[in-house]
Amino acid sequence: MREVAIVGIGMTPFGELWQDSLRNLFAKAALAAIDDAGVDHIDGMYIGAMSTGLFVGQEHIASLMADYLGMPGVPAAHVESACASGGIAVRQAFFEVASGAGEIILAGGVEKMNDGADTTYVLATAADQEYEAFHGVTFPGLYAMIARAHIHKYGTTREQLADVAVKNHENGFKNPNAQFRMKIDRETVMNSTMVADPLRLLDCSPVTDGAAAVIVASMDVAKKLARPYVKIKASAMATDSLALHSRKDLAALPAVQKAAERAYKQAGVTPDKIDVMEVHDCFTIAELVVMEELGLVERGKAGAAVSAGMTRLGGKIPVNTSGGLKSKGHPVGATGVAQVIEIVEQLRGAAGDRQVANAGLGLTQNMGGSGGSCVIHILEAMS
Amino acid sequence: MREVAIVGIGMTPFGELWQDSLRNLFAKAALAAIDDAGVDHIDGMYIGAMSTGLFVGQEHIASLMADYLGMPGVPAAHVESACASGGIAVRQAFFEVASGAGEIILAGGVEKMNDGADTTYVLATAADQEYEAFHGVTFPGLYAMIARAHIHKYGTTREQLADVAVKNHENGFKNPNAQFRMKIDRETVMNSTMVADPLRLLDCSPVTDGAAAVIVASMDVAKKLARPYVKIKASAMATDSLALHSRKDLAALPAVQKAAERAYKQAGVTPDKIDVMEVHDCFTIAELVVMEELGLVERGKAGAAVSAGMTRLGGKIPVNTSGGLKSKGHPVGATGVAQVIEIVEQLRGAAGDRQVANAGLGLTQNMGGSGGSCVIHILEAMS
Repeated sequence: MREVAIVGIGMTPFGELWQDSLRNLFAKAALAAIDDAGVDHIDGMYIGAMSTGLFVGQEHIASLMADYLGMPGVPAAHVESACASGGIAVRQAFFEVASGAGEIILAGGVEKMNDGADTTYVLATAADQEYEAFHGVTFPGLYAMIARAHIHKYGTTREQLADVAVKNHENGFKNPNAQFRMKIDRETVMNSTMVADPLRLLDCSPVTDGAAAVIVASMDVAKKLARPYVKIKASAMATDSLALHSRKDLAALPAVQKAAERAYKQAGVTPDKIDVMEVHDCFTIAELVVMEELGLVERGKAGAAVSAGMTRLGGKIPVNTSGGLKSKGHPVGATGVAQVIEIVEQLRGAAGDRQVANAGLGLTQNMGGSGGSCVIHILEAMS
Repeated sequence: MREVAIVGIGMTPFGELWQDSLRNLFAKAALAAIDDAGVDHIDGMYIGAMSTGLFVGQEHIASLMADYLGMPGVPAAHVESACASGGIAVRQAFFEVASGAGEIILAGGVEKMNDGADTTYVLATAADQEYEAFHGVTFPGLYAMIARAHIHKYGTTREQLADVAVKNHENGFKNPNAQFRMKIDRETVMNSTMVADPLRLLDCSPVTDGAAAVIVASMDVAKKLARPYVKIKASAMATDSLALHSRKDLAALPAVQKAAERAYKQAGVTPDKIDVMEVHDCFTIAELVVMEELGLVERGKAGAAVSAGMTRLGGKIPVNTSGGLKSKGHPVGATGVAQVIEIVEQLRGAAGDRQVANAGLGLTQNMGGSGGSCVIHILEAMS
């Protein structure tokens, strides 16, 4: 298996981007990544998107984007695993380069969510249609049940949930691409509109348009380009039942635990060696459970760790320096790729005000549905 | 790059399968393939489907299927390239095994088209939404334009188009999994209901439910299983503009030509060495243009070749021995995988009444939209 690198990154700002169509968004991110890498062609392309069919009435988007980028002919495929679609795109590019079939592959993600579709319905298609969505449950409701279970089992508090959002907005305030570049305090979160008890508006990631892309290449290509690059030390995935009712423990996310175990093994590292992480905080409770599944803290201790500042910039292990899904925004198909971009910037030492000192090893954790799928990448700085 | 084999196959009958849900269909095909291979586990799974979101309101299907197959935890991703989605699933499994990351990967495809959705609208999302579908064009209309161009440029006749359907029904009559197991004659095709001039009802593939799956494995695994297997000698893909108006020649399908060129090069063969082919006859005209792009005949000569019997069972190069999309049916996401299954059966010498004598080398050509994407596999009989 060949070693694989990331040699270029590009993304659009995240937000309500009424002026850009799906194809415009993707092309902007893809061209920025190609430019950043300094490559003059790509051998193939993977695009993560959750449901461009339901959001904007367009399937077959990979060929569309190859055409719109002015490179018809290039092999291109769309990949999907709900909100983990972006992570899958990076993973498929990794396999193609690792196999030797391709040298330079673009992995991107895009979603256009603010275009008139019934967003809550579309997102609910990531849950089990026959056993969950049909009966009216939506994602805030599913994660509220996870939060209730975590509160019941471990004594996690309302304040601790709020502190996840406060930290992520603190970071997002420093990110020019973030959708909500504002600081918030604990009281504002706790007094925001109730969405699904105990989750309030400021516990939830927003509805976002955006695109992100990275260039994945062989080590030979990476060295020839003579620009900063990072090595993909691990690409791991795991699934779990889509429906919450099939899980043994509502306060756990087994797909995250399994994917993490595989990723740490592939990379030959332990969690304490990671310098910076981007994790899937679609709701504040998700960040807490994910921290526990990744092995950053013991089960039930994530809330206290966040409130104590362990995961802030300058803390023991900074988490979501980009602002996370909460502040940066969550264009579902693009999120997994945008997480990789933040870690690449950290490992390049190019994260500006958000820089983690001496970051050498980073991790991204991208999740679909209520934890039905999870993709983890571990990235290492090269110089 | 490691060599890769196909060690197991399984599919449902194709048709209007009201008694089976999306997940039932997929599980039946997947379990049949696992059983046929004689493996006791899989390392991962790819599922091709065009739009389960629009057809049945379910995204995130890869995790759903892993769960429903009783193997939650297994890495699984959904891949899409409109009607070429099944071909993409086989291709991604090929990359994962070739890279050494996986030993035994399931590649499947599924579509549940008869479940109340507006099928013509859903299929039209494979065309360019902003420049084609928005203005009301549908796929019979797009392929009718290709047919008109071919008739105008090369003198292809209405009778020659009909002969494609007649041949494919002759073959499908012998296929127990075919949706329309009946012979038809030229007059019946030419007198069937007009859909989009010059294409009539019996020039069009039907709307179909169905699923298909294959097990892709390393050569080491294939040899240990001690069952018949075939080698994947080439996996190639190409894209083209989604919109017909961006093409230089309406009577050509450049994505097919490019993918074929790449596939022949990878496999180190010329078209005349292929013993049997499954091609994407979504409409009768498609089979003719594809034959020309694959290099079976000179441009403009495919119609005459079909009418002369060149591609019938017993002809120089049998095409669509399964009955093709026309007679076997076209559950869009499953089609590319079902094509591979037919070729594997031919190469195993297990195709019964449809057997091509001494078939050693086979090809599958799977296409998305009006030729916006094309995936080609070349398979070789082993032992």
